[in-house]
Amino acid sequence: MTMKKIELRAPYLLFIADVGDQGHAKTGHGIAFWRPQLCAGQMRLPGCRADLGLPELDVAAAIAAGVGTVIIGVASTGGILPDTWVPPLAALARAGVDVAGGTHVKLADKPVLVAAAREGGARLIDVRVPPQGIQVGRGNKRSGKRVLMVGTDCAVGKKYSALALHREFVQRGIKADFRATGQTGIMIAGEGMPIDAVVADFISGAAEALSPDNDNDHWDVIEGQGSLLHPSYAGVSLGLLHGSQPDAVVLCHDAGRDDLLGLEGIFPIPPLDEAIDIVLTSARVTNPACIWAGISVNTASLDEQQRRDYLADLAGKYGLPCVDPVAIGMTDIADYLLEHVQ
Amino acid sequence: MTMKKIELRAPYLLFIADVGDQGHAKTGHGIAFWRPQLCAGQMRLPGCRADLGLPELDVAAAIAAGVGTVIIGVASTGGILPDTWVPPLAALARAGVDVAGGTHVKLADKPVLVAAAREGGARLIDVRVPPQGIQVGRGNKRSGKRVLMVGTDCAVGKKYSALALHREFVQRGIKADFRATGQTGIMIAGEGMPIDAVVADFISGAAEALSPDNDNDHWDVIEGQGSLLHPSYAGVSLGLLHGSQPDAVVLCHDAGRDDLLGLEGIFPIPPLDEAIDIVLTSARVTNPACIWAGISVNTASLDEQQRRDYLADLAGKYGLPCVDPVAIGMTDIADYLLEHVQ
Repeated sequence: MTMKKIELRAPYLLFIADVGDQGHAKTGHGIAFWRPQLCAGQMRLPGCRADLGLPELDVAAAIAAGVGTVIIGVASTGGILPDTWVPPLAALARAGVDVAGGTHVKLADKPVLVAAAREGGARLIDVRVPPQGIQVGRGNKRSGKRVLMVGTDCAVGKKYSALALHREFVQRGIKADFRATGQTGIMIAGEGMPIDAVVADFISGAAEALSPDNDNDHWDVIEGQGSLLHPSYAGVSLGLLHGSQPDAVVLCHDAGRDDLLGLEGIFPIPPLDEAIDIVLTSARVTNPACIWAGISVNTASLDEQQRRDYLADLAGKYGLPCVDPVAIGMTDIADYLLEHVQ
Repeated sequence: MTMKKIELRAPYLLFIADVGDQGHAKTGHGIAFWRPQLCAGQMRLPGCRADLGLPELDVAAAIAAGVGTVIIGVASTGGILPDTWVPPLAALARAGVDVAGGTHVKLADKPVLVAAAREGGARLIDVRVPPQGIQVGRGNKRSGKRVLMVGTDCAVGKKYSALALHREFVQRGIKADFRATGQTGIMIAGEGMPIDAVVADFISGAAEALSPDNDNDHWDVIEGQGSLLHPSYAGVSLGLLHGSQPDAVVLCHDAGRDDLLGLEGIFPIPPLDEAIDIVLTSARVTNPACIWAGISVNTASLDEQQRRDYLADLAGKYGLPCVDPVAIGMTDIADYLLEHVQ
């Protein structure tokens, strides 16, 4: 299978523009946290109140540092691309530096950027635009091992859990790739598939292309999206699950969440065993051997004693490793995977 | 909710070009069979070996008959739009007749057609192109009743079953709409949503837009797509299921099919109770009251005695009406729906 996916060239310059707080530079923080070795520096505009703690580079310094891609690492209000951002990005493009972004307004819709990129031979990479040539999923068994994060909801820490598990594998010397399926994940990984942006008929095919055949002892750690029980996004979640053919799934959950995100008061978060039942039934369509390998819980809403009790209670109930990926880490889940997936 | 969907203007001229056999004019036959009152005539090119049994109209006669839309009712090899088809279509467009098609090559990619349509004030309608402005699904409960066809596989008679059930309702004087989700269905209905062509994030939202709030005693009979257990298309099926919020589902099946279409020898058709279990579990996310209302079986592969035995066996096993929608009709399933959905 020919790999069709977005790929970014390192090293990166993280462009955080003029955002008023750290929160709006979340994507930039994610890249700097997970891939510091790929980040040459940051670029800020006057008035910026975020700081990624990276060297400050202007256009000339970035070019001198051999930057491959300037990544727009901020969320703008309404997903626009303000005119004040364009001149520095265009100057970089004119010097051959790729520009990558995930704003709602496309880079390719800014004529100045398009002209600059053409002049410099640079690429404008909209990470929300899926690559061309994705095929319909086939369900053929692929070699290598795969673990997919699944969720009781959106935004419960699936990306963080996958990145933490991938790091755990790499630190142990195990061959592994983090497979990104959303825009921030793609920017962190430098490659991936914006799975929620592909045409509906091709969801599972896109997931198949993202984790191709690999060595038998290689792990793909796949970022999940949405939830099979979320009425807005479940189609994406199911196509991703089928196409990923996971050998194991890790259930991600937020201990402080009572209702599905965006549907508060209408759709309660389902019980964990109900959430996992439908995941495993569906996963076994394309991988009959798929197992449940643990629970990764965002316990930011709990104090330390509550967290310990909460995780111990879950572990007792399900007989599986139950962790907070930030406070505790993915060690136990990695152990479980290595022991139970052959 | 503002309705965003494709809509065709009747009466129709069915363009079946120069196809070599009746099979390649399947879409045209479907429209002529289900909506004869909307069909003014057919147009054929030299060498055509299909015949829909409709009056033969040339461009002048079609215009004189007040045709609203010329529908390309054939499948061409490779989904192309051959150059020989363009002159008559352009002549009609120039006279203000809309042109509708579902070929892989878009009508809008033919400059001659685009110019003719602009001149005549006609629309070029690619029924595989979703309408603009589809929103993310919300899962809010809508008024009116809904029944969705679901399948053990693709191409098992979901469209036919929905059309036959809709006809049954209409004949009884029950308020009902057939809601089309695929290109042939859209051409038959004159409106609908090409659900497999929307961007993945919007599948359930597109399904919500297709069957908006309605009178409490009104039925939407919704054409299904794919199967939750088909590794190629399940994401589409799940988003459609969630967004449709069906009060009931009818399971469609082909008695002669052992393996999933296109995946022969790899993926067997699942047992019917396994197929329905996951459908009902998923359906109840957005409509906890959803019931299973019967089985609609394509028994074309069986002789009459075998068919009777097969359907009686299923009915005994599941305690539900089990019919062949062609040989027997949807009467029993309509009765069951009216009795069990309040």
